Amino acid sequence: MSGPSDSGLLAPVRAGTPVEAAVSDEAWLQGMLDAEAALARAQARLGTVPKDVADLITEVARAEDFGVRELALASRETANPVVGLVQALTARVAQSDPAAAEYVHRGSTSQDVFDTGAMLVAARALRILRADLAQVADALGELARTHRDTPAAGRTLALHAVPTTFGLKAAGWRSLVLDAAERIDRLVEGGLPVSIGGAAGTLAGYLEYAALDAPVDDDGVLDREACLDQLVDAFAAETGLARPVLPWHALRTPMADLAAALAFTAGALGKIAVDVQSLARTEVGEVTEPTAAGRGSSSAMPHKRNPVLATLMRAAALQVPALAGALTQCLTTEDERSGGVWHAEWLLLRECLRLAGGAAHTAVELARGLVVRPERMRANLELTGSQLVSERIAAVLTPELGKAAAQQLLTDAAREAQRTGQPLAVALAASPGLQGRFKARELVELCDPVRYTGGAHHLVDRALEREAA
Amino acid sequence: MSGPSDSGLLAPVRAGTPVEAAVSDEAWLQGMLDAEAALARAQARLGTVPKDVADLITEVARAEDFGVRELALASRETANPVVGLVQALTARVAQSDPAAAEYVHRGSTSQDVFDTGAMLVAARALRILRADLAQVADALGELARTHRDTPAAGRTLALHAVPTTFGLKAAGWRSLVLDAAERIDRLVEGGLPVSIGGAAGTLAGYLEYAALDAPVDDDGVLDREACLDQLVDAFAAETGLARPVLPWHALRTPMADLAAALAFTAGALGKIAVDVQSLARTEVGEVTEPTAAGRGSSSAMPHKRNPVLATLMRAAALQVPALAGALTQCLTTEDERSGGVWHAEWLLLRECLRLAGGAAHTAVELARGLVVRPERMRANLELTGSQLVSERIAAVLTPELGKAAAQQLLTDAAREAQRTGQPLAVALAASPGLQGRFKARELVELCDPVRYTGGAHHLVDRALEREAA
Amino acid sequence: MSGPSDSGLLAPVRAGTPVEAAVSDEAWLQGMLDAEAALARAQARLGTVPKDVADLITEVARAEDFGVRELALASRETANPVVGLVQALTARVAQSDPAAAEYVHRGSTSQDVFDTGAMLVAARALRILRADLAQVADALGELARTHRDTPAAGRTLALHAVPTTFGLKAAGWRSLVLDAAERIDRLVEGGLPVSIGGAAGTLAGYLEYAALDAPVDDDGVLDREACLDQLVDAFAAETGLARPVLPWHALRTPMADLAAALAFTAGALGKIAVDVQSLARTEVGEVTEPTAAGRGSSSAMPHKRNPVLATLMRAAALQVPALAGALTQCLTTEDERSGGVWHAEWLLLRECLRLAGGAAHTAVELARGLVVRPERMRANLELTGSQLVSERIAAVLTPELGKAAAQQLLTDAAREAQRTGQPLAVALAASPGLQGRFKARELVELCDPVRYTGGAHHLVDRALEREAA
Amino acid sequence: MSGPSDSGLLAPVRAGTPVEAAVSDEAWLQGMLDAEAALARAQARLGTVPKDVADLITEVARAEDFGVRELALASRETANPVVGLVQALTARVAQSDPAAAEYVHRGSTSQDVFDTGAMLVAARALRILRADLAQVADALGELARTHRDTPAAGRTLALHAVPTTFGLKAAGWRSLVLDAAERIDRLVEGGLPVSIGGAAGTLAGYLEYAALDAPVDDDGVLDREACLDQLVDAFAAETGLARPVLPWHALRTPMADLAAALAFTAGALGKIAVDVQSLARTEVGEVTEPTAAGRGSSSAMPHKRNPVLATLMRAAALQVPALAGALTQCLTTEDERSGGVWHAEWLLLRECLRLAGGAAHTAVELARGLVVRPERMRANLELTGSQLVSERIAAVLTPELGKAAAQQLLTDAAREAQRTGQPLAVALAASPGLQGRFKARELVELCDPVRYTGGAHHLVDRALEREAA
Repeated sequence: MSGPSDSGLLAPVRAGTPVEAAVSDEAWLQGMLDAEAALARAQARLGTVPKDVADLITEVARAEDFGVRELALASRETANPVVGLVQALTARVAQSDPAAAEYVHRGSTSQDVFDTGAMLVAARALRILRADLAQVADALGELARTHRDTPAAGRTLALHAVPTTFGLKAAGWRSLVLDAAERIDRLVEGGLPVSIGGAAGTLAGYLEYAALDAPVDDDGVLDREACLDQLVDAFAAETGLARPVLPWHALRTPMADLAAALAFTAGALGKIAVDVQSLARTEVGEVTEPTAAGRGSSSAMPHKRNPVLATLMRAAALQVPALAGALTQCLTTEDERSGGVWHAEWLLLRECLRLAGGAAHTAVELARGLVVRPERMRANLELTGSQLVSERIAAVLTPELGKAAAQQLLTDAAREAQRTGQPLAVALAASPGLQGRFKARELVELCDPVRYTGGAHHLVDRALEREAA
Repeated sequence: MSGPSDSGLLAPVRAGTPVEAAVSDEAWLQGMLDAEAALARAQARLGTVPKDVADLITEVARAEDFGVRELALASRETANPVVGLVQALTARVAQSDPAAAEYVHRGSTSQDVFDTGAMLVAARALRILRADLAQVADALGELARTHRDTPAAGRTLALHAVPTTFGLKAAGWRSLVLDAAERIDRLVEGGLPVSIGGAAGTLAGYLEYAALDAPVDDDGVLDREACLDQLVDAFAAETGLARPVLPWHALRTPMADLAAALAFTAGALGKIAVDVQSLARTEVGEVTEPTAAGRGSSSAMPHKRNPVLATLMRAAALQVPALAGALTQCLTTEDERSGGVWHAEWLLLRECLRLAGGAAHTAVELARGLVVRPERMRANLELTGSQLVSERIAAVLTPELGKAAAQQLLTDAAREAQRTGQPLAVALAASPGLQGRFKARELVELCDPVRYTGGAHHLVDRALEREAA
Repeated sequence: MSGPSDSGLLAPVRAGTPVEAAVSDEAWLQGMLDAEAALARAQARLGTVPKDVADLITEVARAEDFGVRELALASRETANPVVGLVQALTARVAQSDPAAAEYVHRGSTSQDVFDTGAMLVAARALRILRADLAQVADALGELARTHRDTPAAGRTLALHAVPTTFGLKAAGWRSLVLDAAERIDRLVEGGLPVSIGGAAGTLAGYLEYAALDAPVDDDGVLDREACLDQLVDAFAAETGLARPVLPWHALRTPMADLAAALAFTAGALGKIAVDVQSLARTEVGEVTEPTAAGRGSSSAMPHKRNPVLATLMRAAALQVPALAGALTQCLTTEDERSGGVWHAEWLLLRECLRLAGGAAHTAVELARGLVVRPERMRANLELTGSQLVSERIAAVLTPELGKAAAQQLLTDAAREAQRTGQPLAVALAASPGLQGRFKARELVELCDPVRYTGGAHHLVDRALEREAA
Repeated sequence: MSGPSDSGLLAPVRAGTPVEAAVSDEAWLQGMLDAEAALARAQARLGTVPKDVADLITEVARAEDFGVRELALASRETANPVVGLVQALTARVAQSDPAAAEYVHRGSTSQDVFDTGAMLVAARALRILRADLAQVADALGELARTHRDTPAAGRTLALHAVPTTFGLKAAGWRSLVLDAAERIDRLVEGGLPVSIGGAAGTLAGYLEYAALDAPVDDDGVLDREACLDQLVDAFAAETGLARPVLPWHALRTPMADLAAALAFTAGALGKIAVDVQSLARTEVGEVTEPTAAGRGSSSAMPHKRNPVLATLMRAAALQVPALAGALTQCLTTEDERSGGVWHAEWLLLRECLRLAGGAAHTAVELARGLVVRPERMRANLELTGSQLVSERIAAVLTPELGKAAAQQLLTDAAREAQRTGQPLAVALAASPGLQGRFKARELVELCDPVRYTGGAHHLVDRALEREAA
């Protein structure tokens, strides 16, 4: 039995990328099976499950031996796929050893298995995403270094403002990517936690079975507190996930943190994307995307080299923050487990992971291959006849004339330059208010956008001091 | 080559439902192929494509013969799957007739094919969804009729307020479902439109080919205006979709309308879900979900009959409005086609369709099988010792005592009843302020919640007059 | 006592616009007072409240006599402002006539008053918004007519694609605005409803008072069904709002419909805004915003004429769909009145109304004053050396060479033209594959973007046939 | 001139709370004035502005002397309020000292002032919010300690699951509040940054003026790198904000971080709110909100004590994550300053701050005054006749009977108990499969929910070890 395929047809940003495989239904199923196996091994550490049973469960817990479609269909009966999975896993174990089957999912609850599986999946996806961010940051650092002193128009509200450098822009992109990497690191280092709470977060089922199964201390009574701590520790150790203070069935901090970090990542990459598109516009032409066979071609227009990488990244950036917002809302979840709020998280988390992860993967190619055109940047700087430096001129004239008069003189000269098509330096030289105050060469230098990049170079240097991701 | 599977493991609300198949990658691919075939047939109607070529293209355009995964992977190069699809379709046609292959996608552009395909998919999904809504409304109408006079506690801000009837609640649910059906109908009747604009919305490519291919009028010149109109009409006729006034590549009204209707539908069904959960709570116990083999069972707690249908519906309701909000944002799309905003719509649209559609399918089962417990409703009405009718008592006392004094007397009596555990009628009878004003029986009747359902029965009758969906 | 001011400092898009006043706290207070007064008059129509009492309540119900800040502060005690308002209104009425005070809010509940007030406010705001949309559509229609044949580059994925006309773009904008107007009209004509349900939607309180107060029929028994219908009709008549079939305390269709219409409006206006910004970019220069004293100036750069109107509209478009999404989620509201879901609607609705309304007001100025530069459009068309018409050339060459060969030849020629800086026509003329097939003049015409606007003119004509808003 | 008032009428959660005042229009205006003054003082530290001028600017920069409404209205001309503010501030300074007026906003740009002002406002609001979270955590810690061993039903998917303790629930709430506090602390400690970049992020204007105004080093040339560093350091020192590596005009990490922390806070408090509502339901009755004069009263139903605090908190939780999602989307902002994306942040940020802040303030009262009813918790535990412990019974029977047989026996006994109304222990005792295996007393103990709270007590102890906020 097989269902529809999840080919990425509607989400090219992640089609075929490593993160896609890491968060697929099959990967999620494996995550849940890994959780079941790790639980058995953890219980074996405590001596409440025989070690060979735990080994058998571990051996059997291979996703390829389970039907993901059957489990999905069965999940309509119970609202989650774990009930069916436990039945199927139990049956598989029983095939080898009926007595061992009694130990599958012992004392556990669906949410422990699902959430632990989800954290395993998320951790694997984040590792991939994180490595891609490092590559992006490296490539952007290279761009920033290379173009540290490449002047370009700074643009605000769609218009030329004052000059900047392309290096500063690239350093800014890198800075955002490092911010994203930092947020992912914080998540990973803080530790995505195992979920272990039992039916309603008290671990009572686990403790009950432990009391039945466990080697007890001298007076024949289980030390429940120690047992609880050991079980959680062992489960964390067996999964490689972190140890939470409290079961988080209804305390969804890890989900909200994932949502925040992934929304940040997608949004940060989206910033790079819209900048690339802005600079790639036909009239601007300051960058083009890397070419590759077939890349960027259009079904109607053979001449076009569409900025498709930026397009894919921007598409992700338009989706992830909204998905992450909905995921964050799931913090507001009633009782020990909500009927619906928990269930709403799953799809949202997966989409956030694979859209953000796909965008990061796409960004590696974009950042590495971006073609930068300093000559077009220079040409564009000349477009407005030095209006880009009007701020500077106003500054220089202000001590001479006062702020208001300086601005008025400049406005008049700019209008005159625009009317006549003259360079602004010429219009200024002809301005009655400036007679005798500046030499023509001084005015030409004053009006040269390339000489007005302020501290851009220094900012690039400072930004590059920030350690690589 | 095959990618991951889209089994519904993380979205049980739609796993295995008809709408899931209707919006799968495979269905989307078929939608796009249908668009290509319909375009060829439309051009054949105009005489600019040979009829047998159009027939051949139609015959070849079967999704099962194309590799959805290959197309998805290829779409990373062009940011959409149509470029690759056209190549593959052209190759397939060429296998039968190389000359015919020249006519594939003639004059067209990716977005025309993608968007027309998307509208075909949406129309098919809406038909399924709409039929399910009709079933839901019927079943709820039956519930409303049956329980027209079943008294139950009305609850506001989590507390008992005044009595109502379960029939009125069911009638309200039905009303929302009919509202949803109406919004879907408006969409479907107003017509989801074909997309036909060519590379940038002028249909220039189509017209250019038509001028080359078409039978021309007497003076040898193509009547471009007539040709354009005929082409759009013919494409609409061949697809069964509506004819838009303007190409809507960058005028995304159809997407926003879909978003609104689907968010409404999911939200409306979510209302039913949270009500069912509220009434199903252990302490309330006024409804339970239909039982079925395995339905609602828990991996840890064999006694539980979880309200899983409501859980699935609520999970959808938590997601769709957020996804639809992001889809609506895509109205703000620059130029003749945005690099990213268009692309962000696809996944969002599909998820809205299948989550809302899955919720509707789930709601059929819930509405048909909901077990209603009038005796628990009656018992709960007695819980607060007639406080549910305090509004009524205040009303009756007001003409006697004035509003302020009436409320004070009532508050005192209620406190006394709560303190002593007496019925409110007894506390009132003992109240000095009421001595001699009412007979004990009058007070008992006044305090009977069952006698204070206001116009609930009449509202149910009125609501049921509204025509079935 | 006065609280902070709502000056619009953080939302210039609506600062000082008519819609801002229409939805202010003061306006909302007046809406609620209007609801109380209309309720009294409706009850007077039924004869259950003396007519002079209803007149007195109406006379006293003037927002300026109530302290909006006091009411807001008091609302923290009850989670809504109506409880305090009823006390204050009762006290004011009592000053004139203590007996009349008994009739204030008779049989009613906070939500009836709040929601009816909200619908009055919304209806007033929509009227303003709707009139502004009509102005926008008129101005855009004028632009479309004027520039019906003004050629301009069509842009897709940030790059020149094929030619279009500015008229077609303006016609598209108008089409979106008419779509928005249609959705507002549907809302207003379908009718924003009064809210009248009493404590839990059964109208029991109203009926109880009516039974006490009303002239009864011959046998001394109130016809409750008739009374209910009459009361709802009368309340609708007195407010000018529509008559709902059912009380909608927990059936939030009107809110979801408002959310959808307002998100659509803001998004549609956002499309115009991003297009204006795209065309206004320094390098593009095809449009500029209307100039006005001080408009668009920058604190740092005296030369800039920022597209501030588009900026304000876009800012609104980025917010409203998200706010509207959250408002739509409030459909999922439990019981007869939710503790929180109802309360979450209020701010969201107001922001949607005033941001969308402010954007519409801003759009009037933008649409009326937009400066269009056909000469820059023409110049930009020449930028790519006829690559804009490569689609056409491919079409023309295809019958001669076959599709694949045609595209290859064109790609080669385009590359050659780009390499040498020659016009594409020259490169094509030199192409070996085309020797003897076309005259030089034919190639020049073929390569002229101005001759390749397809059916743009006809689409404009068709679009303008759509009736004005 | 005064505009509408921002009384909180539609947002009682923040009406009159300290955070409301901290983020009002007036506070925002003061924040911007503080930024201007701090900038002047920073420049005075560098010696480029005379110290007495900086003092004068500081003295004059008092919000109460400026018309917030005039500035708001003027901002429609420039899309931000700073242009008008600079004019007004300059005029005010000029009244005292015309020469000093030349130094106002020297070298600066609107965004530097607006964003720095916004960070000052946010820092002030967070301080208030943070203090409230500490109070909430303390009160919840107290609840957790008091009710460490108070048994209560654990509820999942709306139904009783297994027992837990109220102390564990309260400890969970506290844990979420501490998580929120931690995220706020991280933001505040990491440092909300000053914004100082000049017109397009190069600080060129500042450096230009510094070159004109500054004491230069021996060779008469300004050390621009040192000057830049000193200026940023001095501005950070004068505002008390952090020093960013790069100007963040278009690198919106601080906004996204604020969005994430505030969405988390509101969502976490929302969890408490929905739990309180769940427990406060009439049928459940395990908690009630603190009573206060007038608190929770209803306009229609004098007997009700509505959970209004939880209602307000939940309303905030429904809004903030959606608003924060939109704010996070603003990461995707083009060029050196977007026309619209920047502007969309303002309102969203303020609403997030004051809704989350208002919710925290409300939560203090809720957490301190929550009335807990252990006797109702105990009574509810008995409701299902020991079904709450069926997990335990299954565990205990499993070693005796095997898992499948144990579950079957239990299911049968539970059905029998439900049918007959007997306690489960009796039904079990009568079960043929258990004959002779357990004593009656053992079965009674086994079926006692109070004895099955697992490790709840230990988890509370562990959770309380986490340091107070």
